[in-house]
Amino acid sequence: MKALVTGAAGFIGSNLVDRLLARGDEVVAYDNFSTGNRQFLAEALKSPKCRLVEGDVLDGDTLGAAMRGADIAFHLAANADVRFGTEHPQKDLDQNTIATFRVLEAMRHAGVKRIAFSSTGSIYGDATVFPTPEDAPFPVQTSLYGASKLAGEGMISAYCEGYGFSAWIFRFVSILGERYTHGHVFDFYKRLLADPTHLHVLGNGKQRKSYLYVHDCIDAIFTAIQSGERGGVEGKAGIFNLGTAEYCEVTDSIGWITGALGLTPRLTFAGGDRGWIGDSPFILLDCARMRKLGWAPTLTIREGIMRTLAYLRANPWVLEART
Amino acid sequence: MKALVTGAAGFIGSNLVDRLLARGDEVVAYDNFSTGNRQFLAEALKSPKCRLVEGDVLDGDTLGAAMRGADIAFHLAANADVRFGTEHPQKDLDQNTIATFRVLEAMRHAGVKRIAFSSTGSIYGDATVFPTPEDAPFPVQTSLYGASKLAGEGMISAYCEGYGFSAWIFRFVSILGERYTHGHVFDFYKRLLADPTHLHVLGNGKQRKSYLYVHDCIDAIFTAIQSGERGGVEGKAGIFNLGTAEYCEVTDSIGWITGALGLTPRLTFAGGDRGWIGDSPFILLDCARMRKLGWAPTLTIREGIMRTLAYLRANPWVLEART
Repeated sequence: MKALVTGAAGFIGSNLVDRLLARGDEVVAYDNFSTGNRQFLAEALKSPKCRLVEGDVLDGDTLGAAMRGADIAFHLAANADVRFGTEHPQKDLDQNTIATFRVLEAMRHAGVKRIAFSSTGSIYGDATVFPTPEDAPFPVQTSLYGASKLAGEGMISAYCEGYGFSAWIFRFVSILGERYTHGHVFDFYKRLLADPTHLHVLGNGKQRKSYLYVHDCIDAIFTAIQSGERGGVEGKAGIFNLGTAEYCEVTDSIGWITGALGLTPRLTFAGGDRGWIGDSPFILLDCARMRKLGWAPTLTIREGIMRTLAYLRANPWVLEART
Repeated sequence: MKALVTGAAGFIGSNLVDRLLARGDEVVAYDNFSTGNRQFLAEALKSPKCRLVEGDVLDGDTLGAAMRGADIAFHLAANADVRFGTEHPQKDLDQNTIATFRVLEAMRHAGVKRIAFSSTGSIYGDATVFPTPEDAPFPVQTSLYGASKLAGEGMISAYCEGYGFSAWIFRFVSILGERYTHGHVFDFYKRLLADPTHLHVLGNGKQRKSYLYVHDCIDAIFTAIQSGERGGVEGKAGIFNLGTAEYCEVTDSIGWITGALGLTPRLTFAGGDRGWIGDSPFILLDCARMRKLGWAPTLTIREGIMRTLAYLRANPWVLEART
């Protein structure tokens, strides 16, 4: 198939591009390099089956032209910065909500009717059911990021109903692994490099989070799309949680990271049960819907964190390259 | 208090303005008259307590200036046209999603931290629980209108969490009553005037819908805001369904309308269980949360439809004035 990938130079996007090429698919890699990294696409672009289009998802014309002839759009481009939403509220609106609308419109005009979308477990806000299933009680949003992804999901579903699109919407936990460029492992490692004796932790360190290894994430995406069950059927949106069946506390993660680095930093805590405004103190998704399709993650959270740390240690340039 | 009302010249907005003035409140009536009607504000503007600001909700500067000193914003301006979403998908994005963002930003800059918002029962999509409570299973959107209101709700909730806003979000069924300018009673009456012998009905006529009389709706809004329970508390969004505890079929409604008009038109049906793409064939909201605050509707659906019809018959200009 021919796939267009937005956010193709990002962490998940570039891994997805590599996997598509490995499957023999043709890829249009779309990115504006605002946060994406050219090096992540360096190998992919050696393939004659991969074409780079440098453009912004908000630029409907460029996007529409890039989209032509594609069988499916993987819309991964996003402002993935959950934490600083309240510092620039328009960013989530522009880069997530409006950008998703532009993708949908570009698809409609180009006649592309299949979309896979990276949503987030953050849309469950302060969930009341754990593990949280896709049809959990209608949540109240706590972050602008979650709200903007919810808006994206809503439009995608309405396009399925209204224009006969097919969609796979994936509500990710935090994704870990090679090319990881933001998140707690990145932050902790970078700060420990600067000061190995002390680590300041947002919240009380008891926040419980689930994580998933990026290749497990991509396996799930392909499994869902190939299954044809929910989504894949014209006019339907299939919604899938994607995570591991376990969670860890922030302090667990710190223990694994500092252990691997051979450090024993003094820990201080900002306090409170949330890392930041709108943070969900507990994220654990019920992934039964995805598992029913035969998918299961291959790495535990600890293994995912260790791989991520190993990647960062082997690629020190990533720490500096981050925008 | 001093209230800013967006969509102040609309059906619900103008009724709300009148009620605010009757309570002794000061009102800034904000409207761009794209679908609002100057005559609906004619009485209100005779009051020294009512000031009209002609502006678009997308014009943040004008809106922000109008907002200054207000204690609360009633954000009712919207593209309320549920039916034709797929003909102009950007309209819901602009006039509902982005407009709500502009209202929130204007509030933030003007220091206004309380908002009441007109959302919709359409966000439950094809609900699986009836009557549908506010915490029903996380729905999948079926209309661009519903998706755009969901996006609005999400941002409002995130502003509560992130900026200490207080919000009252009302998920309305279809509202009926004086100054009603669009919806099935309007359409049926107008078409029966043109041809009293024949009425063509979208869908199979079996669509089950709930309706609420506009003054019952406004009573509920004031009840919720005064209660202070959920919403009114800093940093919280209170979400309330608003409807009657009953529903009627489209053909029931047709029977009441034609009976009152003394007509026996031949009915033809477009067929299918939905009136249009993305239509919800059954809407019945569980309003226990609102009723717990002491509110109950005073009119039945039939009484509401009869009042609406009486209003339209007494105000034939409304049929022509509609944009």
